[in-house]
Amino acid sequence: MAAKADEVIARCRKLASFSEDSGSTRRTFLSSAMRDCHRELSSWMSRIGMNVSVDAAGNLRGFYSGSAPEAPRLLLGSHLDTVPNAGAYDGILGVVAAITLIEAIGDQKLPFAVEVLGFSEEEGVRFGVPFIGSRALVGRLDEEVLDRRDAQGISVREAIRQFGLDDNKIPQAALPDDVLGYVEFHIEQGPQLEHLGQPLAVVEAIAGQSRLEFTFTGCANHAGTTPMNLRRDALVAAAEWIVAVENAAHEVGGLVATVGRISVKPGATNAIAGETCVSLDVRHAVDEVRSAAVQNLTRQAEEIVKRRGLSVLAKQSLNQPAVTMDAFLTEQIARAMRASGCGAHRMVSGAGHDAMILAERVPAAMIFLRTPGGVSHHPSETVLAEDVAKALACGEQLLQQLAASSEFLKRTCRA
Amino acid sequence: MAAKADEVIARCRKLASFSEDSGSTRRTFLSSAMRDCHRELSSWMSRIGMNVSVDAAGNLRGFYSGSAPEAPRLLLGSHLDTVPNAGAYDGILGVVAAITLIEAIGDQKLPFAVEVLGFSEEEGVRFGVPFIGSRALVGRLDEEVLDRRDAQGISVREAIRQFGLDDNKIPQAALPDDVLGYVEFHIEQGPQLEHLGQPLAVVEAIAGQSRLEFTFTGCANHAGTTPMNLRRDALVAAAEWIVAVENAAHEVGGLVATVGRISVKPGATNAIAGETCVSLDVRHAVDEVRSAAVQNLTRQAEEIVKRRGLSVLAKQSLNQPAVTMDAFLTEQIARAMRASGCGAHRMVSGAGHDAMILAERVPAAMIFLRTPGGVSHHPSETVLAEDVAKALACGEQLLQQLAASSEFLKRTCRA
Repeated sequence: MAAKADEVIARCRKLASFSEDSGSTRRTFLSSAMRDCHRELSSWMSRIGMNVSVDAAGNLRGFYSGSAPEAPRLLLGSHLDTVPNAGAYDGILGVVAAITLIEAIGDQKLPFAVEVLGFSEEEGVRFGVPFIGSRALVGRLDEEVLDRRDAQGISVREAIRQFGLDDNKIPQAALPDDVLGYVEFHIEQGPQLEHLGQPLAVVEAIAGQSRLEFTFTGCANHAGTTPMNLRRDALVAAAEWIVAVENAAHEVGGLVATVGRISVKPGATNAIAGETCVSLDVRHAVDEVRSAAVQNLTRQAEEIVKRRGLSVLAKQSLNQPAVTMDAFLTEQIARAMRASGCGAHRMVSGAGHDAMILAERVPAAMIFLRTPGGVSHHPSETVLAEDVAKALACGEQLLQQLAASSEFLKRTCRA
Repeated sequence: MAAKADEVIARCRKLASFSEDSGSTRRTFLSSAMRDCHRELSSWMSRIGMNVSVDAAGNLRGFYSGSAPEAPRLLLGSHLDTVPNAGAYDGILGVVAAITLIEAIGDQKLPFAVEVLGFSEEEGVRFGVPFIGSRALVGRLDEEVLDRRDAQGISVREAIRQFGLDDNKIPQAALPDDVLGYVEFHIEQGPQLEHLGQPLAVVEAIAGQSRLEFTFTGCANHAGTTPMNLRRDALVAAAEWIVAVENAAHEVGGLVATVGRISVKPGATNAIAGETCVSLDVRHAVDEVRSAAVQNLTRQAEEIVKRRGLSVLAKQSLNQPAVTMDAFLTEQIARAMRASGCGAHRMVSGAGHDAMILAERVPAAMIFLRTPGGVSHHPSETVLAEDVAKALACGEQLLQQLAASSEFLKRTCRA
């Protein structure tokens, strides 16, 4: 398995060279770098007898038939797009691992077909909206998304046409009704597994997410001529609240709350801030816990501004419920992990993934690989070869378990 | 005096219409709007028998001779330039008030000449360096400043030539050695006089100023995948410190400390801050108090980052000592204020002024006018007509006091 793991890593690194930028990896929705990536992946899939196509949403799809022509299908995959200045593993590792698993099966035919999915868009870089690829599979790639435009004014629809695809065929990209489930390998993109000394985790749920913007309004004034007792400083008020956000999140297990953006007006060294805008990102696996946290933090902001004679306005831009992964698949993955000699660590994903979108239609599950240093979205993003080997072992074990499970084979969404 | 006050206000408002921008006031160093401003002020000064010139640093200078040809001179004035989107009084009120005081004298000749100074540049808008006008008078308009360039790449030297002036004659702009002192009327630009219900104040000192930039470095990471206990958030650390800055300033009388700028990297809603840069502006009339405050705040930043496992780097960009106003002139002004029926409120200027530069060479003093709402550098900046009337009354009284003071007439810098 060590040789296969090395090959997975080598393949990921090769694919990272297909980039819109020279010297760093950036591969956005249907760029020419994406065409190169498709070509490479297609050659690997064709070589092992897979039937390769690109759907109208730009997803690369490789079909490996089952033992019977009418066998239902299991989906394996992840996304092919990247952020700017990306690493080599986020997303694409899940596609390369899936192909490598099919290779490892050799000529064996399973009682189900396997379709490998390389999603065209998950990061939301080009059009500011994520999951364009997986949305098409669940029938949610709607007009609003198709009309969105990138920085050059090109719409999603036009990008699809420019790539040589037919946007009228998007409905045909939707999942057929013979799907048994979807399993996605993905790097954790966080420090938890490293901290625990675990190579892999099975994802139980993808955390729900709230995003808000808080605008603190005080009174801009001269930093030299306004004594401390006559100030209404919008930055100090926001700062007091940012510390309160951290304290509140520490008090609730599994909660994360982050202020990542801040802007100040007028924003000069010698001017007291009249207005400060900050972002708030709150995530938890239990929606009620998340809502209560947002309420609590909003109330704390109001208390701070009341005491200081300022005002605050909170505006919500996202309220995305948590998504539970499929219990049967999750249990099967945990069993496969134990059989492969890994602890079956369970965790909540704090980040969104394609599995979250597919879960709307089909049983979905995820396997996380430890991310050294918790570093992702950066060229120094990496994986350990031994962890990749364990992930492949777990994947092979999972395929054999599922092939032997009569319960699994009855679970198609047409059932 | 009410009619004269109204005329001062009307003149200031008229001069505010000489602007580089339509619809708002912006009048920077030697712009064409400045030429219009010069023309208008020159016509007023010439009409009352003043000898008007523009020196090589672009300062407008009007000379009103004294009773004897060799009489020493008193300087009155302020700056003619403005910030963008300015009000009508900051700076120019001091020039208009000076001209109005000479008008009020009528044909009376004083035992000293009066030179009215309209400084070409105080705000630092065009070249990012303030006090270009007054620096020339104290012989400090050096090559480094003359070579600075504006956003269009035009140097100070080139701007001087384009205005039709001769930069080789800058040394001749320096103050002669017959100067008795400099008195500047200026709006307070803060809320203190309004808060105290005082129309005027005599400035005892101009606060010293420290400017620093603090860079907090933690570790950028994913807001969803990094649990609270594994974060090294550079924004929360900076926020904790910003609150500490406010607390520390409240504890020391007369101290002001301000964080007015903040920037965060990467600066995304879903990213934990890896780096946060904040500005610090600290002012106090006593340099030792200011230095101790900067030391204390630097130490507090170091304590915060140590506890949080981050690092911080502080870089000082300005360390400007406090400037004491001339004790004799200050006392004369306080006497004139009392004689004009105002309380002789004394205060420290938190902002820098041309008087601070002139104090390097000549006895300098300032009179502040109450600023409604503490608002300046904004079109809504205003003054009360009754306060202008009191300022003019105080000015006339001061001129008569000084004319009668044998001690004053002996105080030239050539003495």
